[in-house]
Amino acid sequence: MRAIHLGLMGCGTVGTGVARLLLEKQALIQARTGIALILRRVADPDHERDRGIAFAPDTFIRDARQIIDDPGVDVVIEMIGGETIAKELILAAIKKGKHVVTANKALLATQGNAIFQAAVDAGVEVAYEASVGGCIPIIKSLREALVANDIGAMVGILNGTSNYILTKITEEGIDFESALGQAQANGFAEADPTLDVEGIDAAHKLAIITALAYGMPINFKDIYIEGISKITPLDIQFARDFGYCIKLLAVCKYHGGRVEARVHPAMIPEGNILSSVIGALNAVTVSGHAVGDLFFSGQGVGMLPTASAVLSDIVDIARNKCFGGVGRLPHTAFQPDAVQAIPIMPMTDIITHYYFRFAVHDRPGVLAAISGILGKNGISIKSVQQKGRKTGDYVPIVMLTHHAREADVQSALRQIDTLDVVGPEPVLIRIEDDIQTA
Amino acid sequence: MRAIHLGLMGCGTVGTGVARLLLEKQALIQARTGIALILRRVADPDHERDRGIAFAPDTFIRDARQIIDDPGVDVVIEMIGGETIAKELILAAIKKGKHVVTANKALLATQGNAIFQAAVDAGVEVAYEASVGGCIPIIKSLREALVANDIGAMVGILNGTSNYILTKITEEGIDFESALGQAQANGFAEADPTLDVEGIDAAHKLAIITALAYGMPINFKDIYIEGISKITPLDIQFARDFGYCIKLLAVCKYHGGRVEARVHPAMIPEGNILSSVIGALNAVTVSGHAVGDLFFSGQGVGMLPTASAVLSDIVDIARNKCFGGVGRLPHTAFQPDAVQAIPIMPMTDIITHYYFRFAVHDRPGVLAAISGILGKNGISIKSVQQKGRKTGDYVPIVMLTHHAREADVQSALRQIDTLDVVGPEPVLIRIEDDIQTA
Repeated sequence: MRAIHLGLMGCGTVGTGVARLLLEKQALIQARTGIALILRRVADPDHERDRGIAFAPDTFIRDARQIIDDPGVDVVIEMIGGETIAKELILAAIKKGKHVVTANKALLATQGNAIFQAAVDAGVEVAYEASVGGCIPIIKSLREALVANDIGAMVGILNGTSNYILTKITEEGIDFESALGQAQANGFAEADPTLDVEGIDAAHKLAIITALAYGMPINFKDIYIEGISKITPLDIQFARDFGYCIKLLAVCKYHGGRVEARVHPAMIPEGNILSSVIGALNAVTVSGHAVGDLFFSGQGVGMLPTASAVLSDIVDIARNKCFGGVGRLPHTAFQPDAVQAIPIMPMTDIITHYYFRFAVHDRPGVLAAISGILGKNGISIKSVQQKGRKTGDYVPIVMLTHHAREADVQSALRQIDTLDVVGPEPVLIRIEDDIQTA
Repeated sequence: MRAIHLGLMGCGTVGTGVARLLLEKQALIQARTGIALILRRVADPDHERDRGIAFAPDTFIRDARQIIDDPGVDVVIEMIGGETIAKELILAAIKKGKHVVTANKALLATQGNAIFQAAVDAGVEVAYEASVGGCIPIIKSLREALVANDIGAMVGILNGTSNYILTKITEEGIDFESALGQAQANGFAEADPTLDVEGIDAAHKLAIITALAYGMPINFKDIYIEGISKITPLDIQFARDFGYCIKLLAVCKYHGGRVEARVHPAMIPEGNILSSVIGALNAVTVSGHAVGDLFFSGQGVGMLPTASAVLSDIVDIARNKCFGGVGRLPHTAFQPDAVQAIPIMPMTDIITHYYFRFAVHDRPGVLAAISGILGKNGISIKSVQQKGRKTGDYVPIVMLTHHAREADVQSALRQIDTLDVVGPEPVLIRIEDDIQTA
């Protein structure tokens, strides 16, 4: 029997899931692959935690560097996460000629180009299916299944925590803080939820799949990012009145020589299949010139769904090592010499529909003043409604626009902000009416 | 540049799509793979048809055997379809040491085991992503992405023609014959629609993915098959009143030492994501012990969506040939020596919910007679409604059951059929309330 020896660095939630699948499903994996995957070393400083796994003696160690220095380890599985020690360990493993499997989207989004280059130089593979979309095989699909497709657009729900919170606000009418509290209590949000609820984690993932789709270097820094912490039950209710639900979307689209790439809350029609993606699920819709629209949904978080994607990577590498196909796939779906820098459009150039909610004094002429400014900025109004009741001095007015350019919208909002009949903090939520989904 | 030479046998709709992608997307595929895919020969007896493709001189030939005899062809793409000449050509190509890509589900469902064995013996690969689910990468997911998962169940909408027809009946209230006529007029159904509307095509596909999921030989002959030709607008309307829609489902489930595998129309809850799969779309939900539920939907028919899946296979083989990974994947997701015959349960052993519609004389005691027979057969009624108006001598009665065994249901229906207050041809539609989908 062919064998591949694995070293697991980091045995937290997902790491434990990886170890469990490797040990509990060894026979299944052998029957499928003809390869024995041997978990030779597991490194984690925390030896107290009950992981429910009976490791072989001497398997469990404290220092990940021992794995890197172990010539018997073929593939290193980095499950530490974050942007600090993980990078150093991955680069050290690559230098030692070890293949690497990681789910570390924060690291790949910011350092992926350098890591992939180091891997190419060392003749090893870095695999990262679990970094985007949990158990959804989106990386594999972009690198393999869709190889003959020009990718037009992708729209994803890529952060399970945010989707869980938005689902709670929608279903229970509670506010963001309460929903976050519930998410934390149920293990769907971390103590510091910033990366998740502020859209950063979704943008990390979007940076990776945008690079795969268009053959460009990973470019996280130019992605527009807006989180869900300002979404209120009121706007969700108004959205529903117009036939929309609110999701944190990650969107990329190709526009000839440049791409758009953005993460923000958006209203989507309730009939769109993405609306049915609730709780901690993830989903992606990919529009390719040949396939049309391909839709995936599945668990975006959790021990075993993520570990399943890690195992998919381990097996791919094991198959390549055992059958001689190492390097058969380029790291970012395009050959390194075919990767071209494609600029990400500034957010001000985006054209979409908009929802505005203004708090206004209930006085004649207010609507004329607001719509006058919108009109002067080239923004055409599709619908205006005075919604809900007076709170304090203000009544809410809600507007939906036809297609408008973000730069014009921002300019108009600044001008509207100077009107003394309009209260502070107007709400802007983009509407995605044009998402094609299978 | 590495190069792979291709021979395309059959240039009908999908074959033309394959040729178009190969020629129009050559640069894209090279940028992604580093491999030139060269379409060396295209064989089709029909040289008159306008395919909108400018083939190089001498590329287009009449006789597929010339491709098999051409030592310069590395990979043969069989797009002829059907169970006659295609098998002979595929086996001849394998014997000549050529890899094969096919979308021929009818052939694989009935002859796949022998074809795969011949490929193993000759050291070549037979790839068939396009045989199931159109552009949905379900074969790749079962063979690669889900490698560490015990597959519990799969539920698919695998025949675009049937789904298109059912969608038409549902949305327009027309009868089966009219909907079929529209499907034929719009190119979604063939002149002889039997394979599609009688569930046979979906069963071909189910036979393939069931083998992949459970590591058993392909077993088409034991799959229960029932088509959609008896579905009426009336039953669709009644289903909707109960919160269901009707789809032609392909279902497989693992039950320890045996599996269930069946194709038939079924009612599914309108809230289930499978309900949103309309028109000619295909969809599959896969339940794995680690991933939970993974859902895919995409175009199930059409020139380019299917061709996209064929290209995915061609590229996989090209990568294996160029980078040395030939044979890295077993043909049916399990190593040949790990494949075990697992029996398919007889349909009579299936347990599910049922919808019955009886035409009865509007007379006291009728309901007591019917429900008495059901009760004696261990079938417990969840809901009874007298639905709609009297037609001729009869009024329709609709019943929904709790979980019941198919054998008991068939026995009860035979007994009910002997009641002289009950009209001919009771309607039975199974209800799938328990489908888990992401």
